[in-house]
Amino acid sequence: MAVEVVYRSSRDLERLFMDKAEADRHDRMLELAEALATALHRASPTLTDQQCEDIGIYMAKNREVFAKAFKNNPEALAELPDEAQP
Amino acid sequence: MAVEVVYRSSRDLERLFMDKAEADRHDRMLELAEALATALHRASPTLTDQQCEDIGIYMAKNREVFAKAFKNNPEALAELPDEAQP
Repeated sequence: MAVEVVYRSSRDLERLFMDKAEADRHDRMLELAEALATALHRASPTLTDQQCEDIGIYMAKNREVFAKAFKNNPEALAELPDEAQP
Repeated sequence: MAVEVVYRSSRDLERLFMDKAEADRHDRMLELAEALATALHRASPTLTDQQCEDIGIYMAKNREVFAKAFKNNPEALAELPDEAQP
């Protein structure tokens, strides 16, 4: 038996990481996902909280692709995976 | 009476512009909006076509803000207007 260090984001207490850099990435992804969910709610008030959260997480997980699309390359979105990603 | 030149995007035949650069901007906005709507449908199949279209247009109209958010600044999303923009 031994004591070991694990890392987690304060936004998601369930998910533990052995690697601090991975925990940081997860935290930044969730930060963007939350900000997007809030923005989506303002954009389309008919969306449910669950829909806003799902879309926010999907976009945040694929942030590089969306960054390209919003910069000047909408075709980049064709690279996106289907939603059922782990 | 005189003949005059007006411009429009082939994606939106209703909207006429006196200025070609403005018509170009409108066309690029709609191109991004369409690509986003398709991506949103894949991200969350429970969304209606109307919801995907509305969110796509909202994000495309505010593309600079979303570009910043996806690059490295989620706080930029706080600048967004409410949905009821002309």
